[in-house]
Amino acid sequence: MITINFANMMSDSVNGGLTIAEIDSLKDRLGAVHRAVSGRKHHELYFLDLASQSTEEIDLMGESIRSNSDYFLILGIGGSALGPRSLLEALKPFYNQKHAPKIFISTVETMASFLILMRAMKEAHGDKFAKRIIATTDPEKGLLREIAKKENFNTLPVHENVVGRYSVLSPVGLLLGAVAGINIKGLLKGSRDMLKKCSAEDIWGNPAYMTSALMYLIGEKKKKDISVLLPYSDRLKSFSEWYCQLWAESLGKDNAGQTPYPAIGTTDQHSQLQLWIEGPKDKVITFLRIEDFGSDIAIVDEDIPSMNYLKNHSLKELINAEQEATELSLLKAGIPNMRLNVPMIDAYYMGQLFMFFEIVTAVTGMLYGINPFTQPAVEEGKNLTYGIMGRKGYEAKAAEVTAYRGKIKDSKYKID
Amino acid sequence: MITINFANMMSDSVNGGLTIAEIDSLKDRLGAVHRAVSGRKHHELYFLDLASQSTEEIDLMGESIRSNSDYFLILGIGGSALGPRSLLEALKPFYNQKHAPKIFISTVETMASFLILMRAMKEAHGDKFAKRIIATTDPEKGLLREIAKKENFNTLPVHENVVGRYSVLSPVGLLLGAVAGINIKGLLKGSRDMLKKCSAEDIWGNPAYMTSALMYLIGEKKKKDISVLLPYSDRLKSFSEWYCQLWAESLGKDNAGQTPYPAIGTTDQHSQLQLWIEGPKDKVITFLRIEDFGSDIAIVDEDIPSMNYLKNHSLKELINAEQEATELSLLKAGIPNMRLNVPMIDAYYMGQLFMFFEIVTAVTGMLYGINPFTQPAVEEGKNLTYGIMGRKGYEAKAAEVTAYRGKIKDSKYKID
Repeated sequence: MITINFANMMSDSVNGGLTIAEIDSLKDRLGAVHRAVSGRKHHELYFLDLASQSTEEIDLMGESIRSNSDYFLILGIGGSALGPRSLLEALKPFYNQKHAPKIFISTVETMASFLILMRAMKEAHGDKFAKRIIATTDPEKGLLREIAKKENFNTLPVHENVVGRYSVLSPVGLLLGAVAGINIKGLLKGSRDMLKKCSAEDIWGNPAYMTSALMYLIGEKKKKDISVLLPYSDRLKSFSEWYCQLWAESLGKDNAGQTPYPAIGTTDQHSQLQLWIEGPKDKVITFLRIEDFGSDIAIVDEDIPSMNYLKNHSLKELINAEQEATELSLLKAGIPNMRLNVPMIDAYYMGQLFMFFEIVTAVTGMLYGINPFTQPAVEEGKNLTYGIMGRKGYEAKAAEVTAYRGKIKDSKYKID
Repeated sequence: MITINFANMMSDSVNGGLTIAEIDSLKDRLGAVHRAVSGRKHHELYFLDLASQSTEEIDLMGESIRSNSDYFLILGIGGSALGPRSLLEALKPFYNQKHAPKIFISTVETMASFLILMRAMKEAHGDKFAKRIIATTDPEKGLLREIAKKENFNTLPVHENVVGRYSVLSPVGLLLGAVAGINIKGLLKGSRDMLKKCSAEDIWGNPAYMTSALMYLIGEKKKKDISVLLPYSDRLKSFSEWYCQLWAESLGKDNAGQTPYPAIGTTDQHSQLQLWIEGPKDKVITFLRIEDFGSDIAIVDEDIPSMNYLKNHSLKELINAEQEATELSLLKAGIPNMRLNVPMIDAYYMGQLFMFFEIVTAVTGMLYGINPFTQPAVEEGKNLTYGIMGRKGYEAKAAEVTAYRGKIKDSKYKID
């Protein structure tokens, strides 16, 4: 099981840390959250139930794609791209160098790139093009479902209550998993075990509730406005970005919400660490420490005096030493931090990680008193885009953009 | 030429924006900075002179590697990895799918991974292994130079005054460029032209000084603690990360320094935009708008009523419409933002971009009154790592870690 250690978040370890009393003060509110979660009060909490879905249809479709395709192209954006990408990078690093079908994840606007792809597929495959497209979307509603019906695409249903950024354990992520040869049953088993662990009502026995409480308190009460996720494995770089999308879009509301920062160890020791330690004291760091990297390499058998201390050590030992050293140096500088201990990066523990952070995010949103499943602020940009592109009904937006262009063009605040 | 437009940073556009008087108030300090830069008062300002280096030796070495190698492996970390990576992704997207030698950039600790690689190369190539290694390092000093001399490696000199995060235009980046078939002369020409443009003393004619002044003022006076870089091209994702390393490690000192955020358009419209607009008002956004993407694709000729507005439009038009719409929606929400107009992503304009942000970073550091070329805070982590790994002379650090481990292990602040 993934475990958490939050000693370095507490006031007996860092100045401006949290107290047991502060955590316990959330008891009533967490009780209400617990009832809302258990009772699925938001229908978008359906993401919890993805843990126990059947994978039969996805397995079959994955097998079929594996056996008859050279390329597997995923069109998606936001969570629909970051979820599959983080799965692939974590569990099948260098996949395209070693495996087929080659997988590409396109993040250009989904429907526009889909229309371009559909034209190319028709040219290449004639009438049979529809058999090579899988619409992974709402079972009833939406433009893509409409086109899928008309053109007779294969389809996989994404339950209407699954929000994009909580969709990695739906067919959105699982189909990628099945195509890439990832153990998706193990992934779901991990998510079920984590869900069970995070169903305890008592905060002191529930790692997700505790993490939500810590992040909420350290953000709101201690003004740690930036929450850094720092996994110590390059394989989790996209996972870090997946988490940032989940956190930012769920919690950035009502003038509140920590800014999540996608870091990676050891790289960011040589990039961000200087800022974290000597810059503004506005950050909290969450380590993901990987206990077992699967493979390991002895470092040195050359006789180079200044490197001799690395003799009898392996790369894994060095990376975990750096994790521990970074953690301690942050503590010594008074920067609050906590650690998730991840036994290894496999499908089972990735399932745990995805479920863990989804619960933490939803629960933190409820502590903030906001709805963690909406994203109202992105509508205006969409409407302005429609205006620029000449969509009917958006003429007022088009006029607004025209006026703005004139202002920018004539501005004296520019250097050419 | 890359141009800047900063109308949306000013108080007549956004609440809490800047005034002309505030900018002009920096005149004396910028005058002093100008004299320091022109006179190369910090010896690390040598990065400016990289713009006029000769590339003869690098061209020859690149040609030799291209003609006799299947793989080209770069070992580096921090700027030594992010610089080459951002060059490759920007100028040769999907390089490994299309070209040889295949290029990999390893970001595990440099010397440790080098020792592992050296052993493997000796096994594979016997005595000739040294001919396949190029030590790109200080011409005289350091462990790598010492090993290079002993083992008779090929070498390329990196001037002693080049700091890692300001090294992309040194052989650190240029050799990758020569191997990958990037026009490195064009890259340097771009950097020279930008250097010339940014050598004007008057802030209103110097895009780098103006950008430094705006970022310094909006950070220090208006409490915009997070500076987001938002290029509208997937090819600039690593560039965004390169900038973040440069900015964070250079400026994060004395309890100050904006936190740089590596964003990417259009992806982050579906990830971070919600937070930027409705979250805390602590951000400033810098767009990189690409005018010409080189290739372009018409989107739609299907008859799908709700998508018909995309007819007669191309993907490039859609992406730039989204950039403009996002910019305007940020403005309407009162979020300060500015824009760099980048004519296209080629070697020449990448040279401009690298030089521009290096100058902006160094000058901003001088406005903060800190040294933008050091990174003192990362030393403690290194020393603790030595302690854990048993390096001689670091016994006290080892003891500190042992005590810390005991504390963490016995902590009641954990959930297993």
